[in-house]
Amino acid sequence: MAKQFKRLLITGAAGALGTVLRNNLRDYADILRLSDINAMGKAAPHEEIVQCDLADFDAVLSMVKDVDMIIHFGGIPVESDFHSIVHSNIVGSHNIYEAARKQGVKRVIYASSNHAIGFYKSTEVIDTEAMHRPDSFYGLSKCFVEDLGSYYYDKFKIESVNIRIGSCYAEPTDRRMLATWLSFDDLTQLIVKSLTTPRVGFAVIYGASNNDQQYWDNSKASFLGYAPKDNAGHYREIVLAKLPDTDPDHALYKFQGGNFAAAMPDDK
Amino acid sequence: MAKQFKRLLITGAAGALGTVLRNNLRDYADILRLSDINAMGKAAPHEEIVQCDLADFDAVLSMVKDVDMIIHFGGIPVESDFHSIVHSNIVGSHNIYEAARKQGVKRVIYASSNHAIGFYKSTEVIDTEAMHRPDSFYGLSKCFVEDLGSYYYDKFKIESVNIRIGSCYAEPTDRRMLATWLSFDDLTQLIVKSLTTPRVGFAVIYGASNNDQQYWDNSKASFLGYAPKDNAGHYREIVLAKLPDTDPDHALYKFQGGNFAAAMPDDK
Amino acid sequence: MAKQFKRLLITGAAGALGTVLRNNLRDYADILRLSDINAMGKAAPHEEIVQCDLADFDAVLSMVKDVDMIIHFGGIPVESDFHSIVHSNIVGSHNIYEAARKQGVKRVIYASSNHAIGFYKSTEVIDTEAMHRPDSFYGLSKCFVEDLGSYYYDKFKIESVNIRIGSCYAEPTDRRMLATWLSFDDLTQLIVKSLTTPRVGFAVIYGASNNDQQYWDNSKASFLGYAPKDNAGHYREIVLAKLPDTDPDHALYKFQGGNFAAAMPDDK
Amino acid sequence: MAKQFKRLLITGAAGALGTVLRNNLRDYADILRLSDINAMGKAAPHEEIVQCDLADFDAVLSMVKDVDMIIHFGGIPVESDFHSIVHSNIVGSHNIYEAARKQGVKRVIYASSNHAIGFYKSTEVIDTEAMHRPDSFYGLSKCFVEDLGSYYYDKFKIESVNIRIGSCYAEPTDRRMLATWLSFDDLTQLIVKSLTTPRVGFAVIYGASNNDQQYWDNSKASFLGYAPKDNAGHYREIVLAKLPDTDPDHALYKFQGGNFAAAMPDDK
Amino acid sequence: MAKQFKRLLITGAAGALGTVLRNNLRDYADILRLSDINAMGKAAPHEEIVQCDLADFDAVLSMVKDVDMIIHFGGIPVESDFHSIVHSNIVGSHNIYEAARKQGVKRVIYASSNHAIGFYKSTEVIDTEAMHRPDSFYGLSKCFVEDLGSYYYDKFKIESVNIRIGSCYAEPTDRRMLATWLSFDDLTQLIVKSLTTPRVGFAVIYGASNNDQQYWDNSKASFLGYAPKDNAGHYREIVLAKLPDTDPDHALYKFQGGNFAAAMPDDK
Amino acid sequence: MAKQFKRLLITGAAGALGTVLRNNLRDYADILRLSDINAMGKAAPHEEIVQCDLADFDAVLSMVKDVDMIIHFGGIPVESDFHSIVHSNIVGSHNIYEAARKQGVKRVIYASSNHAIGFYKSTEVIDTEAMHRPDSFYGLSKCFVEDLGSYYYDKFKIESVNIRIGSCYAEPTDRRMLATWLSFDDLTQLIVKSLTTPRVGFAVIYGASNNDQQYWDNSKASFLGYAPKDNAGHYREIVLAKLPDTDPDHALYKFQGGNFAAAMPDDK
Repeated sequence: MAKQFKRLLITGAAGALGTVLRNNLRDYADILRLSDINAMGKAAPHEEIVQCDLADFDAVLSMVKDVDMIIHFGGIPVESDFHSIVHSNIVGSHNIYEAARKQGVKRVIYASSNHAIGFYKSTEVIDTEAMHRPDSFYGLSKCFVEDLGSYYYDKFKIESVNIRIGSCYAEPTDRRMLATWLSFDDLTQLIVKSLTTPRVGFAVIYGASNNDQQYWDNSKASFLGYAPKDNAGHYREIVLAKLPDTDPDHALYKFQGGNFAAAMPDDK
Repeated sequence: MAKQFKRLLITGAAGALGTVLRNNLRDYADILRLSDINAMGKAAPHEEIVQCDLADFDAVLSMVKDVDMIIHFGGIPVESDFHSIVHSNIVGSHNIYEAARKQGVKRVIYASSNHAIGFYKSTEVIDTEAMHRPDSFYGLSKCFVEDLGSYYYDKFKIESVNIRIGSCYAEPTDRRMLATWLSFDDLTQLIVKSLTTPRVGFAVIYGASNNDQQYWDNSKASFLGYAPKDNAGHYREIVLAKLPDTDPDHALYKFQGGNFAAAMPDDK
Repeated sequence: MAKQFKRLLITGAAGALGTVLRNNLRDYADILRLSDINAMGKAAPHEEIVQCDLADFDAVLSMVKDVDMIIHFGGIPVESDFHSIVHSNIVGSHNIYEAARKQGVKRVIYASSNHAIGFYKSTEVIDTEAMHRPDSFYGLSKCFVEDLGSYYYDKFKIESVNIRIGSCYAEPTDRRMLATWLSFDDLTQLIVKSLTTPRVGFAVIYGASNNDQQYWDNSKASFLGYAPKDNAGHYREIVLAKLPDTDPDHALYKFQGGNFAAAMPDDK
Repeated sequence: MAKQFKRLLITGAAGALGTVLRNNLRDYADILRLSDINAMGKAAPHEEIVQCDLADFDAVLSMVKDVDMIIHFGGIPVESDFHSIVHSNIVGSHNIYEAARKQGVKRVIYASSNHAIGFYKSTEVIDTEAMHRPDSFYGLSKCFVEDLGSYYYDKFKIESVNIRIGSCYAEPTDRRMLATWLSFDDLTQLIVKSLTTPRVGFAVIYGASNNDQQYWDNSKASFLGYAPKDNAGHYREIVLAKLPDTDPDHALYKFQGGNFAAAMPDDK
Repeated sequence: MAKQFKRLLITGAAGALGTVLRNNLRDYADILRLSDINAMGKAAPHEEIVQCDLADFDAVLSMVKDVDMIIHFGGIPVESDFHSIVHSNIVGSHNIYEAARKQGVKRVIYASSNHAIGFYKSTEVIDTEAMHRPDSFYGLSKCFVEDLGSYYYDKFKIESVNIRIGSCYAEPTDRRMLATWLSFDDLTQLIVKSLTTPRVGFAVIYGASNNDQQYWDNSKASFLGYAPKDNAGHYREIVLAKLPDTDPDHALYKFQGGNFAAAMPDDK
Repeated sequence: MAKQFKRLLITGAAGALGTVLRNNLRDYADILRLSDINAMGKAAPHEEIVQCDLADFDAVLSMVKDVDMIIHFGGIPVESDFHSIVHSNIVGSHNIYEAARKQGVKRVIYASSNHAIGFYKSTEVIDTEAMHRPDSFYGLSKCFVEDLGSYYYDKFKIESVNIRIGSCYAEPTDRRMLATWLSFDDLTQLIVKSLTTPRVGFAVIYGASNNDQQYWDNSKASFLGYAPKDNAGHYREIVLAKLPDTDPDHALYKFQGGNFAAAMPDDK
């Protein structure tokens, strides 16, 4: 069948997940435009490469031109100092949405994070309408960009799917990931469903695989059709063998955000 | 094993779904009594045929005699003018319940419709207690008959299962049906479970298959044991190929009721 | 100040509550157009009188012309046989809305009833989004007209306020009315707020005074600004003196709908 | 891999479910300490046997020494007279928790019961935060011990998982068990997950298999990772053949607690 | 007007609140039967005095004879050792209900306590369906008796109102009481409404005055008509002057149960 | 009585509301430290004046020293360009919280705004846990600072009360303000309650007077004891006289945020 899109933009394309998507989304668009602040190697024939800082509005404005939808994974992916977070994640994401508005782009798929709600306890189960409880400046910036998506949808009808990614790795490596793991295949499915569902409005969805353990309830986003196939439970024996201790007050296990919630600033 | 019922009545037996049920329910009752306003062909040995207008109370009263339960699929199955809807769906269904009361019939399985709630947005997920939001006179009549079932249960203990059927076809043919499709097998299962669960009270349940995409949450009706097996997601590639456009404002996609919600009256 | 409206239509103007409104709304419109199936006496200078059956669509269509908003209290106000209810309340109310659509009337204030939810127990507290639980054919027609209002708002943007009137009398006369009483002044206030709140959408609100006892929670309709002033509790001593018995299974007390819920059909 | 625990205590180890667990949990601890008021046969090399009455605090205090976690299935497992229930279930369970506190035991897995909520109707679906509705003195004692667990967690940080067991048998044998059945394998899984999830806090979860029919919604306990594999639905045909009658008022079917809810005291 | 009741029983009549009720309820019954384990002084002409231990079933059985309703304030009113609590509050309250069943008493008004939910935080607002979170053995017994009331209503139709009393004193004396205070007049009103509302089923309601500050939401019990008149806020200035410190971690302020939640056992 | 606080800091003290608070809070602290980017006139004996830009961290750090609590009303109070909002509201508020953490300040009272949720419809009623729906960059910054408060409470136990101010003026001047008006006295009360409630955690509360009309439900914040005294309803006749038109699609009335939600960017 013909590809679904003419041109998709992936920001953060040099990152770990950006690299996965660069490979896995090739069949969905005639052209994948790839963006990152770092080098992304050589462009394949179906690729366009734009290296830039998302905080540079003019660069973003031209990068977004002629794009159908944006898969926005760019920005700082871990905790950092406040001003770097503001620069890369807050100003950078504003530029993505504002450029999308000016260029007529219809939809943004955003890499939000469980760290937007990382201070809920690991013994709570929350849905997609739970109040924000960020566990870090990083998490705060994710909250901000979700709200930015809400604003751009309500005012300008730019749709967005905000994926609160759990732990997206090749396989789960600790007990927390028995609940938070998102496989690469399931991430890819979630992006594809977000791209091809005809109407998404402003949506929030958790990015976790079909794990036996779940902190998160996606039922209010079931219209997106996300049906994860992988299950961290298959790795349970391996993970339990590694960590025989089950202290419930271990930093990893107290809060949904794990170590992010436990980390304290290093005030020298 | 012996059949579960002596005699079941199917109204609307000449319709598309009635025909499916006429075939699929033969093993559940010694006798299937079939009713329609239109001709239904020749009766098989296990069948009794009663052609009548449901708005004719006397005809309905005798038709309902000696029946264990009623599968009420009769009436106008699409949008129509108000007075036809009142005649066939509102008065007709009143006659079914009132005759059931007089003849001591214990339970009604009713073909309600997603058009009883068709004005919810396709980006909302609703459960079986959501307020009515009919999208048509047709949908209004479905709301009415659900309320009628509520009344007859509360006052006279006639139980009912009100199935809000999505899109019951051989296979899904557009993107909306990725969420709303109900396979014939799953419809049959839902009817059988509604007939054989010992106690159902007044129940509302959505009739959708086990589709990846879901507008509807049946968790409050899980006591009925409906466990759909089919999944419109298996047709996703075919459906996407047909409709490359993903305009979120396309009439089919804005509201759960699809074209019914979008249709405007033709005031000449 | 100038009157808020040029012309308001009151249906059911010869009824008990219609008479109250005929008197109490005179300051809110230059002209009150009054309608009933019964005679309404002589028109005052600020009144127009239209005697007609609401089931007569042509009569309704002309009656609705040049009206700003409709206060729809017409129809049968008590339990009756099914066909009379269909004629007067279901067909009649359809005609009101359909005529409003054709004549460009913006809003309908409807006399719905607690009998739309009369089968909730008197020990439950329900809000304005509770599922219908009609206790009579009368109550069923109220459910239907509420759904009709929902339909006309979603499809045609005709706004409506659906007031589920409790027991609207000069004063409370039994223990049930300690919860359900609505004074004439509070009814009037509720109508006035419904008329003058700039945007009401499709609203449902319970019509009870500021009684100590409450079956109903109007918090989801607080945008309407209804602030009842009267309180059945002031009559508590008088009412208790009359009815020293407190059998919790007395028909009046079991269900919110009181005797309507308890009444059984008289099958001769 | 090394066993997860040094020593687990199972109370009620001579009972039907205790016997299942005695066998199925052998791989999870170096030593299984077994307790019952009745004889438990000969101890295997990996077992320690302590026969005692749980109402004897000193016996319980020494029994609980050096135990990692307690699987508390002891006490009277059916309806009984009030004073026996107080002795065995209320005082006995208090002793378990109080001894756990004094001996530093971290977690209790408790055999609560559906009879703690047995008076909900079989047409309701409830979650783990529904109010108690005990159907018997037995059920009342289950409510009490859940609350006891809540108290010991909030005040002393002793974690507990309170499993509201449905009908735990080799296979389902009546229509009620189509919803309430818990297979031995699924019970075992639920115990294992309760033992090995790093943090459980105070948790309540229903013990039912992956049955098509469900009275209970475990979504708020999904952090425990319970993923039942068996399904009473596979026995549906057999069960239906046995009980052709479907009287919705049959005692077994009216309430979730089945015959417990229906049973009345025998006042001679 | 004639008195509402022939004979009311007040247990715990020698206690602080029992003494208030002994005085304030004299107009509501021809005879007040008073019970306590302690001496109650001389009986007035409208009084009957029965001194007994509620744990003595035979004494309770005869005491309950010919009583219309029971106001059950007896038992230990503060934290105590587990076995005393079981004896006085658990066994004693069982006897009250069981005797009521045998003697045909219709309703019990029970002095439950905020300590049944004392471990909710003082920054949470909970309603009458919140899960129990007892803060003491005392609180646990209150939870138990509420569940006992639920059982006796569901199985035997003995109605009950379970009043979770906050801080019932002449006036509020610390900052916690700005939220939890219940004046004697408001207590009396709550008892009277509980006695005279025709149908109460099994009800739970918080006993707090109309304080500006509220931890508790009684909206689900609004059918009882409790309309408190007093307000701890009038004492705010006095209370603030006494306690200039506002340490949010002060034991009194952390949890709704105040010092009960903070108190730890004294393990010598 | 002695004043409750030694030193309170008011930021934005030169603004309209800051000026109100500068006057009204004088009795609550020995010293009011006042801050603004603009001049604030001469300091009274009980005042300290610090003119600075909140985006200057070092200035903020020293300004916050020796302060008990902070009333943070500083920043841009209307819609502005994105970068000014980031500078003044996002970076500025970060500096307040970060300085509070370093200086050991215990609590922040923040002037959030209805524009954090301005895209809810005026026919919806939302509570304090509703998802953010900002209507402007200004509103987005309010969302951000609320989330910042959540973060600083969860990680560092700095408490905050986030007041979503409606329309704080001397009196209501349009129909929207019938719902959104906050009188100066009620604002003052809300600040005082926020300062003196012993424990507030992370709290969100709407700042509206006791208006008949309400968009907002503060019940989850009732532990704060806010009991507004003024009522925009007293101005209803005056307001209605000014605006005879009741077009429900008037920009002011469609959304809770009024003109902020309706305003579109001016792209030249």
